Amino acid sequence: MEMPFKPCAMTGRTVKFRHLVLSTAALAAIAAPAAHADTLVDNVDGIRVDAEGSVQRFGAMLIDDDGRVEKLYRRGAKLPKDPDYRVDGEGRVLLPSFIDGHVHVSRVGFNAIGLDLSGANTMAEALNRIADYARRNPNKPWIVGRGWNEVRWGLGRLPTAAELDAAVPDRPVWLVRADDHAGWANSAAMERAGITAATKAPDGGRIERGSGGKPSGVFIDSARQLVEAKLPAPLPEERDVAFLQAQDVFLKRGITAVADMGTTLLDWQSMRRQADIGRMQLRVVSYAHGVDDMVTIAGPGPTPWLYGDRLKLTGLKLYLDGALGSRGAWLSAPYADAPGDTGLQMLSGTQLRNLMSRAAMDDFQVAVHAIGDAANAEVLDAVQEMKDNYPGDRRWRIEHAQIVQPSDLPRFGSLGVVASMQPHHQVSDRVMAETRLSPDGLAGAYAWRSILVGGARLAFGSDAPVETPDVFEGLADAITRQDANGEPFGGWQPQEAISREQALAAYTAGAAYAMGADGKFGTLAEGEWADFVFVTVDPLLAAPADLRQGRVLSTWIAGRKVWSVQGNVAAPASER
Amino acid sequence: MEMPFKPCAMTGRTVKFRHLVLSTAALAAIAAPAAHADTLVDNVDGIRVDAEGSVQRFGAMLIDDDGRVEKLYRRGAKLPKDPDYRVDGEGRVLLPSFIDGHVHVSRVGFNAIGLDLSGANTMAEALNRIADYARRNPNKPWIVGRGWNEVRWGLGRLPTAAELDAAVPDRPVWLVRADDHAGWANSAAMERAGITAATKAPDGGRIERGSGGKPSGVFIDSARQLVEAKLPAPLPEERDVAFLQAQDVFLKRGITAVADMGTTLLDWQSMRRQADIGRMQLRVVSYAHGVDDMVTIAGPGPTPWLYGDRLKLTGLKLYLDGALGSRGAWLSAPYADAPGDTGLQMLSGTQLRNLMSRAAMDDFQVAVHAIGDAANAEVLDAVQEMKDNYPGDRRWRIEHAQIVQPSDLPRFGSLGVVASMQPHHQVSDRVMAETRLSPDGLAGAYAWRSILVGGARLAFGSDAPVETPDVFEGLADAITRQDANGEPFGGWQPQEAISREQALAAYTAGAAYAMGADGKFGTLAEGEWADFVFVTVDPLLAAPADLRQGRVLSTWIAGRKVWSVQGNVAAPASER
Repeated sequence: MEMPFKPCAMTGRTVKFRHLVLSTAALAAIAAPAAHADTLVDNVDGIRVDAEGSVQRFGAMLIDDDGRVEKLYRRGAKLPKDPDYRVDGEGRVLLPSFIDGHVHVSRVGFNAIGLDLSGANTMAEALNRIADYARRNPNKPWIVGRGWNEVRWGLGRLPTAAELDAAVPDRPVWLVRADDHAGWANSAAMERAGITAATKAPDGGRIERGSGGKPSGVFIDSARQLVEAKLPAPLPEERDVAFLQAQDVFLKRGITAVADMGTTLLDWQSMRRQADIGRMQLRVVSYAHGVDDMVTIAGPGPTPWLYGDRLKLTGLKLYLDGALGSRGAWLSAPYADAPGDTGLQMLSGTQLRNLMSRAAMDDFQVAVHAIGDAANAEVLDAVQEMKDNYPGDRRWRIEHAQIVQPSDLPRFGSLGVVASMQPHHQVSDRVMAETRLSPDGLAGAYAWRSILVGGARLAFGSDAPVETPDVFEGLADAITRQDANGEPFGGWQPQEAISREQALAAYTAGAAYAMGADGKFGTLAEGEWADFVFVTVDPLLAAPADLRQGRVLSTWIAGRKVWSVQGNVAAPASER
Repeated sequence: MEMPFKPCAMTGRTVKFRHLVLSTAALAAIAAPAAHADTLVDNVDGIRVDAEGSVQRFGAMLIDDDGRVEKLYRRGAKLPKDPDYRVDGEGRVLLPSFIDGHVHVSRVGFNAIGLDLSGANTMAEALNRIADYARRNPNKPWIVGRGWNEVRWGLGRLPTAAELDAAVPDRPVWLVRADDHAGWANSAAMERAGITAATKAPDGGRIERGSGGKPSGVFIDSARQLVEAKLPAPLPEERDVAFLQAQDVFLKRGITAVADMGTTLLDWQSMRRQADIGRMQLRVVSYAHGVDDMVTIAGPGPTPWLYGDRLKLTGLKLYLDGALGSRGAWLSAPYADAPGDTGLQMLSGTQLRNLMSRAAMDDFQVAVHAIGDAANAEVLDAVQEMKDNYPGDRRWRIEHAQIVQPSDLPRFGSLGVVASMQPHHQVSDRVMAETRLSPDGLAGAYAWRSILVGGARLAFGSDAPVETPDVFEGLADAITRQDANGEPFGGWQPQEAISREQALAAYTAGAAYAMGADGKFGTLAEGEWADFVFVTVDPLLAAPADLRQGRVLSTWIAGRKVWSVQGNVAAPASER
């Protein structure tokens, strides 16, 4: 005898398969409803948008017992009579839940449980927070935090170790800049790291120095490693708590899927631990931190979709340059405010191509961080050279693509390169960018519309924790190119603003496509997971100021409520 | 609305929970059979034995739709009328499937795809096989194999590099001894490893030397690392193939669960890869290769049971000494055939206790390799000292426990230490043991019965690939203490032979207890997984010679046939 199913537990699909066969096996004995436990979500103002940005409105949605979309119904259409469950939307706006195309999950989590300076408007305010945090955490051997931004402070220079010593003289302190491309140490931290005037910066990094070449306390890009290598490693328990915190950060903002850029083996193990005990709700598509992590995690190729399409290691994350704020972005012309400095090229052309090949030959997707125009040109050249060796749908990704030569913009479309961009970067960087770059250099900056017009796929995200993963803010940024105060009047380079439909698509279908999840979630198409949100505003109609204030009322994954403004939904009980 | 279940995929228990709730949810609509798809296995000569060795015979078994035992029926008892499926046992003997309490899964797999010398009866035969294998594999940079045994060859000494050079002069060759405690290199391998007369053996190891202290080619215990560190690492694909090969080796011998002693992170990732795509059938309980692997794999504590109770990292494997054959076993008195040599103590008393504490404080189980009487006494002392710090059911394990002071034998029971032993070691080692040890030294050797009489739990296994994982051979060894030829007459130290029931229990319920799987599988008790085998002999009645020739007809896991003598059962289709 052959039992027509295998013991459950492998994957969602296995289970569905098994379930269907079971129902068939005993069909005679089972009344129709037994095979399904449908859920009808009705009385909603439903909006779905496909990858091209074309919109369909609906009034009700039928969800099958696996949690997939079975059917959408126009307002007034005849609805199924007696579903097993019914959800009354009370006329509220229902959207496909949001997808963040570029985040750093574990750092979001550690920030949520660590010292956060992102709210500080002056150095004095920051120093007070640091001193207060140190007082409240007497047992922490290191004071670690992030989020400072000297531009926001109007400091006009980078901060120094001496200033930090005033707040915490007795313990090492390490604070990462808001853009994550620089770190600020106090004297105790530099001492602990054995850093002196003789210490040289590694390739791809820079040590800020004061009189006599003495390191002044800020370490840029790869030079951060000089200090970070000395930080105490978090315990597995701390990693697990951080992941659950990060998951909460996303779910409460209506984000049900993210691309994790730079997943390490330890990040992966922590996510698997939580998924293994039934606590992973968020869908995470991982891009490995490097080739070693990629191979150790996934072996000979991308992992399958795991835990009902909640987790997959699909590709490799590479860094070709740094960030604009710390002058790490690799430019074709020198920085306007640093003559002779063209930023940091972190990989040679050969290294870049070798790493891209190593990933592509085993069918891993490649996502390359490129911010400066020289970096973007280099990646586009590399893809062009490799297309023949690695034919088919590769979905090469460029992360950020902030500064691009206007002549390179159409190449994203012609080469099939996905542009993974973060609308709020444009708003946060605007003033800084205008000092770093000449007007010419800004011609192809944050050029969302040109990239779409060129036929490329656009995926939006937050780069959290660099920016808060607030999709309503991002949507408002994308359609106005103005900040929360409506600055600048008329929008910054307004010709690059995109439509509401295009912006919503970039945060849903576009981001899903970028991570290879099209057909699984992102558009509420029939057969996709029923991942959706109830929200307070209609993103296609609300005034920009109202849109920016939009909020999520409840978040649903696979037809199941995982977060609600009326109070969090308890995570599934541990199996452990 | 709250869907009363979470999306499937996490674990078997989740699914079962979900299924039950679903059935309740739509109970009115579902006829009774719908909630179950029972399987009745009838017309069998069924035997179950509990941990104490008490036997129950049955004629039929009802299996529920999850694959768990629902009920056993005595011969002639009234059977359920219309089960959904029916399996006719045709009167054959049905046993709980076997559990091997001590194996090395990945090495079993790599051996299955590598050069195997275990069948060679003379050095000449071995050298021919090696030369032939090298000819057939011209592209392998290294020739790697295992299974040689100079005792079996009647060589009276260890082999040399020069002898190996005659077979393969041009490429490095590395061959591990049958007991896995020594390695044999040719000159090219020693050269590649930079080994000279000046090379010193690391702690816990020994380098065999010839004239002028020149290494003669054999490296014992930790000294193997000098060469093995230079071996090319297998590719992830090779690891995955090796795992599937190992799974096949066990399933075709009716072994459905194993304790993997010394699981590395890469071993674990390979098993997860196969389980993630639905190809893992074998149940593997892992004991990590060291603390780093333990923490990287499982984090803050043992993993939950994964994939429907198919995989769990439950503990830590430690090595306190080596093996008897290579005089690595740590003895209280010098070897009879090597005056002044008492073997190798691989961990100091403090190191042993620190490692045991590190594991126990996070609730990991501890399994310590101890072969010599001094090693066994040391572990028993350590457990005795630690019992108060780590109260409760810890199931401390001693692996092998081959040579034990008679006065220490009762301590296994009184301290609750599980004895994990391998019957066939007694048969293979007998002649060698009598040369290594004085008659006094052998008083507590392979003392299965004394350990049971002392009230301890006994778990049997094969130490595969060191011995072939043939349970029928092991059962015959255990009840006769004779080899396949009936030598020695009357059995070796026959007072330590055990009953058929005790032996069968040690290969099922006892091994399950040792790995913390009691209640999940091993006894065919109601509620346990229906893991069973049809076999050719009745182990409680067959003459020893017939028992030794016993074979498995088919192997079943969770009520599903996974191997059959009529031809392998296809593995579930890949989800990938």
